[in-house]
Formats: sequence, structure tokens, C-alpha cells
Amino acid sequence: MTYANVPGGICAPQGFKAAGVKTGIKSQTKEDVAVIYSEKATVAAGMYTLNKMCAAPVVVTKRHLADGFGRAIVINSGCANACTGDQGLKDAIVMAEETANGLGIHPMDVAVASTGVIGTFLPMDKVTSGIRQAVAALSIEGHDTAMRAIMTTDTFVKEISIEFPLGGHVVRMGAMAKGAGMIEPNMATMLGFITTDAAINPAILKKALHAAVERSFNAITVDGDTSTNDMVVVLANGMAGNPLIETEGADYDAFYAALEYACIYLSKLIVRDGEGATKFLEITVQGAKDFADAKIAAKSIANSPLVKTAFFGQDPNWGRIVAAAGYSGAEMEQSNVALWIGGHQIVANGKGTGFTGDALKQVMAVRDIAITLDLGVGAAQATVWTCDFSYEYVKINGEYTT
Amino acid sequence: MTYANVPGGICAPQGFKAAGVKTGIKSQTKEDVAVIYSEKATVAAGMYTLNKMCAAPVVVTKRHLADGFGRAIVINSGCANACTGDQGLKDAIVMAEETANGLGIHPMDVAVASTGVIGTFLPMDKVTSGIRQAVAALSIEGHDTAMRAIMTTDTFVKEISIEFPLGGHVVRMGAMAKGAGMIEPNMATMLGFITTDAAINPAILKKALHAAVERSFNAITVDGDTSTNDMVVVLANGMAGNPLIETEGADYDAFYAALEYACIYLSKLIVRDGEGATKFLEITVQGAKDFADAKIAAKSIANSPLVKTAFFGQDPNWGRIVAAAGYSGAEMEQSNVALWIGGHQIVANGKGTGFTGDALKQVMAVRDIAITLDLGVGAAQATVWTCDFSYEYVKINGEYTT
Repeated sequence: MTYANVPGGICAPQGFKAAGVKTGIKSQTKEDVAVIYSEKATVAAGMYTLNKMCAAPVVVTKRHLADGFGRAIVINSGCANACTGDQGLKDAIVMAEETANGLGIHPMDVAVASTGVIGTFLPMDKVTSGIRQAVAALSIEGHDTAMRAIMTTDTFVKEISIEFPLGGHVVRMGAMAKGAGMIEPNMATMLGFITTDAAINPAILKKALHAAVERSFNAITVDGDTSTNDMVVVLANGMAGNPLIETEGADYDAFYAALEYACIYLSKLIVRDGEGATKFLEITVQGAKDFADAKIAAKSIANSPLVKTAFFGQDPNWGRIVAAAGYSGAEMEQSNVALWIGGHQIVANGKGTGFTGDALKQVMAVRDIAITLDLGVGAAQATVWTCDFSYEYVKINGEYTT
Repeated sequence: MTYANVPGGICAPQGFKAAGVKTGIKSQTKEDVAVIYSEKATVAAGMYTLNKMCAAPVVVTKRHLADGFGRAIVINSGCANACTGDQGLKDAIVMAEETANGLGIHPMDVAVASTGVIGTFLPMDKVTSGIRQAVAALSIEGHDTAMRAIMTTDTFVKEISIEFPLGGHVVRMGAMAKGAGMIEPNMATMLGFITTDAAINPAILKKALHAAVERSFNAITVDGDTSTNDMVVVLANGMAGNPLIETEGADYDAFYAALEYACIYLSKLIVRDGEGATKFLEITVQGAKDFADAKIAAKSIANSPLVKTAFFGQDPNWGRIVAAAGYSGAEMEQSNVALWIGGHQIVANGKGTGFTGDALKQVMAVRDIAITLDLGVGAAQATVWTCDFSYEYVKINGEYTT
């Protein structure tokens, strides 16, 4: 399904405003504090990093959105507020309180997100004055400055806004994300914020977000490193007037399809923005026992440095792909394994077809390459997206904080 | 404990001979087929790749050594005999049969190992004539040509031979390994062969090998990729005359200590031979719930491309180390976490100590660096060894087969 694009990013759905301001946390010339706000109360859901060293804002947002309701999001870039102990938790709570005070809402309805260097404390004077400025500057046009405020090493803006029919009404959804393919250390954090004027209850919104993130933000990988600060939050304020989505069914399906579409769209942009990346790889594993197994195998291929450097160098060394699936833990039947690269069959029944060498090198010369591996044991499939490892990757990641 | 070095490599223990010959599988100028032989029957144990796409020789060797007895090992380099289907299995069996015929022993007493490119068939005429030549050339001095025959991108020979007291007798152990830190694609295979004249029963030998490999060959990593062909085999012929080791106790401990010492010695050499590596990193995770958890966390740090590029670039970005432990799945208590790099404490109670920036950069400037992370939940620890990711890594792995 394709969707009608509308302008406005996260402010495209009815009732949402945003703003981003420059406070000097990151530099004097770039926005680094943003506020997103709904004029009516919202249903809210979040998905968070599974990293056990999770940052203070993740702890606070989990707590604040646990009841399934929210109203606003406050975000800073330039400092991750991670590995900051009790002081970090206090600072994240102050961010929520300052935002709530300015908006006249409850602090428990504010989600907090941070991205930047680990192990340093937030400069709270800059953060709080930034929040006050952002609250004062909230507008429908503010999606643009808000988007810029969450960027770190992103080289382009990542946002989308669409509208679609739902229960006889027109529903809008806006979304923005940051992340240069987890390719920039510590700034690696992936943040995603989604707004919608759909009417939906908390439990079913949570279910939809989990499923969509599993097939989008959690299906991209650049180097397998998971940030301390990753977070995706969705706010839904019901202003579109559609009949409340409370169960699975046609309305849920329409909502879910749009949500997945927006999340996959942004996820692919994150991979494309991997600094140093020269290839965009779509890796599909099929013939798997179940979705989880398919995804484990696809991620193992996507994270293999040997596979990633092979694509960078256009080295027709396809054995690395099947070997990476082989050590992934996914079930596979060696004598049934099949592999296609760029539509050409490379392996059939576990043996090379002879399509290799210069012919395969030619196929690997383009930027966008589809890889399909059949594990030969079932009917499930999963797709992940990744990029290659280049000289630039090593350079960028060896020179970051210094 | 330190050990008395003796000459002779894998031929240092009584009763062992070896030879390596040039057959042209790899090139006309390098040895590529080797045979190792014990003049008396040996107890034998093996550990094998867990890769589900395991190569034909792995399948065959598992079967041949399943009874706990062996006598000889035949190895070729230049072709992995992986992803070769039924033909590959037949070829591996012929390698065992040819070796057995030449030596007048049973084919089931021959272990078979291969290393090289995936997806091509063995040139069996060269392999079988090579085996005949190698059998004819067996000698005590042959450890040197045998060692060269298993090398692929190794830039130096990796062997050790030691002697030590055991039950009132002098026991010898020899060992050789190949592997350039799993840094060279498909040639990434790690092979290890250990000989000893100790008298030990099959069950306890297997137990010792498993424990030693877990703390040595399975504790090194360059890029996390596991080969289709990895294998470690030990042969023990009992000619030292020590009382048979049948249970745990002082004799077992002496044997195990020597085995672990030899395995760790070779494992470290493999990491040091990582092409493109500029750093040797010893990563110890302590304060873990159990050994498995400590090792999971240590390997997660060792395999993180962000950590590896940081050490290459001497980037004092310590947040990457704790983040990598955080997403490893190991249990940790954030507020107890401590980190030391090169003996300097970087994190205490989950927070930065302030030792960072230029001071830390200085610590990272040397070649050998010890990293210790305390997870703050228990008393177990594990150590792994790895190297950094450099420009050379990308170059080597992007240009290999072409």
C-alpha cells in the first residue's frame, strides 16, 4: 500500500505542535532541545533499549508512560545522560517537570529522551532555559526545528507525514527519527517519535507499536551495537474522530499498516545515512522455522564484519553469507539451503551453482543489493536492512570524541 | 605456572611423527597437505565448530573420533571442502582412507581437517598424491613442514612444546595452530592440533579439552565470525608411562594446567597475528553471576565494532565498553559497575571517575591493553583476547577472493 503524503511531519496530525531551540549543549549554531506537545491528552506507548546500562531518560520515560497516557515529549541532543547515576535520574525528572510546568500539564505525562556522549552530566541551566524557550516557541511549523534538535551526526532530516482512511474518517500520522545507522559511537542512539490523531486505546496501541518496531527499527543494523538511549514513542490524541480502535479488526489493520509503513520508511533512511556506507543491503531470510529464527539468521548476516567488508569491496565471497547464517543459531537444513544475490541464484541445495567470480562481482557493483537466503526448514521469513563496512566507518569511529 | 620448553612441536612427545608436502592446491611453493601420526594407538578428543553449515571434514572427524580413539590426522589447506554436499563428504572420507592405507591403520582412526575457500571441491588427485608423499616423509623433524602446510594467511608459525612432571614421570605435550585471528575471510578457520605422550582415558581427555578450549580458542575473537571448519583435536598415546589418568585429582590437574597453558599460548598468537591489527586487547569481566555470563559480556565487548575502532583510533570513548556489556544479556547492577583500562579506574559505581580525555588517550597509545569490567553482581570472571579493527582489516576483507 502507498500513502498520501501530507506536509507537517510530526505536526501533521490535528492538535500537535513542536519546537526546537539552540541552547549551546551541542554547539552554538545547532538546535539541541526540542518539545513535542499535543493540545489534548494522548494515549502513549514506548519501546526502549534492552541495554542493561540504560540511560536515565529511558528509566524516567518508561515510568511516565507506564499508564498508557502522555501529552508531551522533551528531547535533548549533545549529552546522553547515561552512566550518570542518581544525579542523572534527577536531571531527567527535572526535564519532565520543567516541560510540564511550562505547558500546565502533569510531569508524569511527559516523555524524556536524550542522545549524545555517555558519562557526562547534563548542563541543566542550558537544558531548563532551552525547555522554557521551546515551550514558548511551540507551533505547527515547529516540526522542522524539533527534527533538527534531535539530529546528531545525521546528514539529512528523517521525517514523514501521511494520511489514510480509517473507519470513515481521515487519520494523519507524523513521524521523525534520528540515527545515522548506529554508525556513530554513542551518538549511535536511535530515537523515533510518532504522532497521530487516531483514536486508539493504550493496550492496542502498545501492541501495534511493538509489532511495527520489530519489523522496522529493530530490523536495521549497522554494527550490532545497541545504544543505552534507544527509544521509540508514539502519542495518539484521538482528534481525527474515528471510532475508537479497541480490538484487532479492519480499523486496527489500517492503523497498523500505516504505522509499519512510517516506521520502515524512517528505518531505511537511518541505514542510508550510515556515515561511510557505500551499499544498502536488504537481507531476507525465508524458509525459516518461525519469524524469530528468520530474524536471528538475517541479523547474523547483517552484523557479520566479513559480509559487510565483502560488499564494500565487491568481493564475491558468498560463503561468508551462508557461514553467518550457520553460526546464528537458527535452524537450517544444509542440503536445502539456497541463496540469491541481486536476483541471481548462487547456492542451490547447499552447493554453489557456479554463479560466482566476475559475474557475481558485477552484481555487487550497484548500491542497492537484495540478498535472499532460504534455510530450507519452514515457511517463515524476515527482512533486515543494513549497510557495508568501509574505510570511512573505521575512520569515523576511531576519531569521534577526540 | 611456567613450563620447560622443549624442541619438536607436535613431534616432541614420544612416538609422534609428522610431515607436510607441496601439492599445488594452494600454490606450487607452499606446503598444503600434512599428516600427523602416532606409532602407538592414541586416545583422541575433538572440539568442533558449532556452525550449522559445518564442512565435510568436520562431519567425518566427529564420526571417526566419537569412540574416543585415533591414530593420525590428515589436513589440507587451500580448499575448505565446505558447501560441497555429498561429494564433499565422499572426498573427506577418501582423505581418511588414503591416509589409513598408507599407514596400515583403520580409517576410523584418522581425523580429517580442511581450511580454505568455501564452495569449491577438493582437487582429489593432488590431495591423494599429497597424502602418499606425506606418509612417506613422516619424521620427527616433520612438525615444521606440517605446521607450514596448515597455514593460510598466518604470518608466523604457531607452535609450542613443553614438558612437565606428572605422577613421577616426565610428560611432553606439543601443539600447533593456524588462524590469523579469524580476520581473513573463509581462510578464517581456526585449527588446533595437540599431541601428548600422557596416559589418560578418553572421557577425562574430552573433559579436559572442552574446559581448556572454552578458556582459550573459544575465548579469542577478532570479528565474531565462526568458521564452517573450526576444529581442535588432541591425541594422547600414553608412551610417557605415567599412571593412567582416569579421574580428577592431582594428575588430572597437572595435565589440565599444561593443556590450558598450551591452548592459551597458541590462542594469543592467533590474535596477535590478526592482519591489520594494531592492538592486543585482554578483556576481563569480573563480578559476574557465573562464568558463562562473564564470558558473554567479555565477548560482547570484544566483538563490538565500536569498541574495536575506538582502540584503533585511541579514542577515549569508554562508554562503548559499558554499553557493549549492557546489551550482552549478562546480568549487571548498573550502580555497582566499575571499569579499568590499563590499570586506571575509569568508572566507579556506574559513574565516570573523570579519568578520560587526553589521560585515557595516553593509556590507549600502547599496543597491549588490559580492560577489566566489574558487573557488580557476583564473583565469577572470564578473560577473552581480541584485537582492534583497522583500515587494514577492511582492506584485507574486501579484497580477498578477487
